Amino acid sequence: MNTHPPRGMRDFLPADVRRRQYVIGVVADVYQRYGFEPLETPAAENIDTLMGKYGEEGDRLIFRILKRGEEGKSGEADLALRYDLTVPLARVVAEYRAQLPKFFKRYQVQPVWRADRPQKGRFREFYQCDVDSIGSTSMVVETELLAAAADVLQRLGFSAFTIRLNHRALLAGVLDAAGVPAPHHGEALVAIDKLDKVGRDGVGRELEERGIPAAAAVTLLDLFGSIEESASKAAADAAAFNGDVMSRLRSVLTAHERGTSALDELAEIVRLSDASSSGPHLRLDPGLARGLSYYTGSIFEIAVPDLAGSLGGGGRYDDLIGMFLGARVPACGISLGLERILVVMGERHMFPETVVSRPADLMVTIWNTDRTADAIRLAGTLRAAGLRVDVYPETDKIGKQFKYADSRGIRFVAIVGDDEAAKNEVAVKDLKTGEQRAHPRAAVADYIRTSLAT
Amino acid sequence: MNTHPPRGMRDFLPADVRRRQYVIGVVADVYQRYGFEPLETPAAENIDTLMGKYGEEGDRLIFRILKRGEEGKSGEADLALRYDLTVPLARVVAEYRAQLPKFFKRYQVQPVWRADRPQKGRFREFYQCDVDSIGSTSMVVETELLAAAADVLQRLGFSAFTIRLNHRALLAGVLDAAGVPAPHHGEALVAIDKLDKVGRDGVGRELEERGIPAAAAVTLLDLFGSIEESASKAAADAAAFNGDVMSRLRSVLTAHERGTSALDELAEIVRLSDASSSGPHLRLDPGLARGLSYYTGSIFEIAVPDLAGSLGGGGRYDDLIGMFLGARVPACGISLGLERILVVMGERHMFPETVVSRPADLMVTIWNTDRTADAIRLAGTLRAAGLRVDVYPETDKIGKQFKYADSRGIRFVAIVGDDEAAKNEVAVKDLKTGEQRAHPRAAVADYIRTSLAT
Repeated sequence: MNTHPPRGMRDFLPADVRRRQYVIGVVADVYQRYGFEPLETPAAENIDTLMGKYGEEGDRLIFRILKRGEEGKSGEADLALRYDLTVPLARVVAEYRAQLPKFFKRYQVQPVWRADRPQKGRFREFYQCDVDSIGSTSMVVETELLAAAADVLQRLGFSAFTIRLNHRALLAGVLDAAGVPAPHHGEALVAIDKLDKVGRDGVGRELEERGIPAAAAVTLLDLFGSIEESASKAAADAAAFNGDVMSRLRSVLTAHERGTSALDELAEIVRLSDASSSGPHLRLDPGLARGLSYYTGSIFEIAVPDLAGSLGGGGRYDDLIGMFLGARVPACGISLGLERILVVMGERHMFPETVVSRPADLMVTIWNTDRTADAIRLAGTLRAAGLRVDVYPETDKIGKQFKYADSRGIRFVAIVGDDEAAKNEVAVKDLKTGEQRAHPRAAVADYIRTSLAT
Repeated sequence: MNTHPPRGMRDFLPADVRRRQYVIGVVADVYQRYGFEPLETPAAENIDTLMGKYGEEGDRLIFRILKRGEEGKSGEADLALRYDLTVPLARVVAEYRAQLPKFFKRYQVQPVWRADRPQKGRFREFYQCDVDSIGSTSMVVETELLAAAADVLQRLGFSAFTIRLNHRALLAGVLDAAGVPAPHHGEALVAIDKLDKVGRDGVGRELEERGIPAAAAVTLLDLFGSIEESASKAAADAAAFNGDVMSRLRSVLTAHERGTSALDELAEIVRLSDASSSGPHLRLDPGLARGLSYYTGSIFEIAVPDLAGSLGGGGRYDDLIGMFLGARVPACGISLGLERILVVMGERHMFPETVVSRPADLMVTIWNTDRTADAIRLAGTLRAAGLRVDVYPETDKIGKQFKYADSRGIRFVAIVGDDEAAKNEVAVKDLKTGEQRAHPRAAVADYIRTSLAT
């Protein structure tokens, strides 16, 4: 009999769940401090809600659920498993628009399902962690989102992360203003993207081969070359670096309207973020692209040194949330890569030992049948004092009970033997130090709490 | 365009999620104090894991997921949505038996899916909240489970609940010992179940009509009649009532072995529970049946006065968890009716106002573009002090911003105007009292916290 979970899906045993809940708890706490509210939607959606929203490839990866009563007959599916948290959000905004606040700020941490080919770090069931702010075009929205994400990472113990910041209209503006014809924008970007690999001369050759006008090529190489140089030098001083990049961009853009207005938005985010926790982490990066096509304004991505890929990203997408309303609805969001964050924190031993590894603070042993009720009474007292207390269920030899507690990583065991019961005492053994001592019953909780804190 | 969630499934808007998370948080906290550990399994299982485990009716209600790549072709399903939390637990116990502790105590709070006909209070996606203790036949297990459930209900604000307690083998023993032939057990139970509706004479007639021997009928009527009488009188004194019921049962059972051993187990649970929080709530109820056929020992059900149905129930089921192992594995558990608890707490206004209804403690307004960074800086300071702070994203008229905060149930608004900024002060308006006062910037957090606490 096969007892595996389905391919690409995972069982989370207690130690896993504790780690996941710890991270999700920090995320929820920080987002709530920023005034974001939790939303939950069903695992399944009507199939028409999802189909056609993720492109052809996406449609193929959607898990479909057979129509009730039709099983084995037509094979028709009427439901599908949630593929992301954005389309359900758009549906919710349309369905409940009368009851939702004008500025709807929601976070949502729920699993999604994709029939991808499973591989290392890629699953068919995984959690997304989205935070979105709906209803305002103000750059206060971007600033708050970036600050919240920075707070989450800081609380989790990440310190040296970078938030790369760009704008969809900025790069097009720069290429336009530099004199790259619109049909060549894509090619120019591909070439420039190789700057750190093949160097200035290599990129120059490629731009020429691809038919980019020489003057445009020089402008672009100067711009991106100098930005890269500042980036490697000025890692510590975000403000100086961003100011430098902005003035270089402005001198290339000159009067280009869309590009200048995009840069103004980024400048506003940088200015406001100087007053928030994300300020020191923010780096303008006119080369940042991000895969998804639906972004309409600012885009961002969170990078950590010595880690390929990102811990999260997002941007402004003013045309998507209104899909079910037939109206433009301003929206901006960040998705944290929860599964990625968990892997990195595991590899780097970033989980606080006390929070995530012990199944209980103390185990009460059972001395004999006559003392069982005493043991249960003691456990109740300690639990009421806030401790996590396991009770060994059987009257095995005391050494066997100690061994069991130790094997589970529980540090303290309590014994109420006949002598202790007569004196209203409890013997407590610290399995870490080996020390065993009798305590007045009423003093046990304080002793355990104090010992655990040190 | 249809923007409803699927039939029988629900969107949880923020106020809903907060209520749900509050209850789930209490459940998790209490269970952890009892040494139970969290487990999570995938939403989907391989279809063979589930089929045939829930009877014919259950099989029909399982949502099946189309095989990847075969969509629209054969209509073949290879996955199915989780139908309960017990079969996945049995699978986990088999799959990870080498890494799980000898006594595996887990709680699991996750959604399940059933293609039932939706109706009031019955959904196609709903949460189950199971706590189970695997690996021991000791009555310490039952005692701890009942105490944990009692603690959960008490923490949620339920006080006058009753935990009805019975044993699968007790009733059969009583009927045997009273002289009801085994083939008539079912009929006798149906008749006795009507005692509170049709009275002693009515039940007597029905027992006679159904061919139950007269002497047996008298024994049963005396037993159940006297238990019912004690129950109505002795509601306050659990120990006296349970002692009385036990001695009556013992006098009927005399030397009946299975029945006496079942009663001994119940007596042990009652004795040990006297040392725990469930003691005052426990009522022996030899008439308690519970629908599920898989119970093998003790069974329990939690009832609240003036509420039809139960808030939860469970029992010992030693033959089920080993289904994938081909071995007998002792197991006992309680399932709390989370959806039911949420409905009852809502109807009875049992949610603490402060925890669940406000989206933020305070909203920072934006005086003008020059003061926006000040507003964001203030919000950051207050958040670092632990407050939940929203920031109005736009520079609308201040009255409009106040109105928005008020409409959202946020009590305090903060204003950093030009005067306040010059004096390093913050004006805070209490929308509940109408009072507005300037505070030194560093004193705002304390002021809000103190005001919220009163």
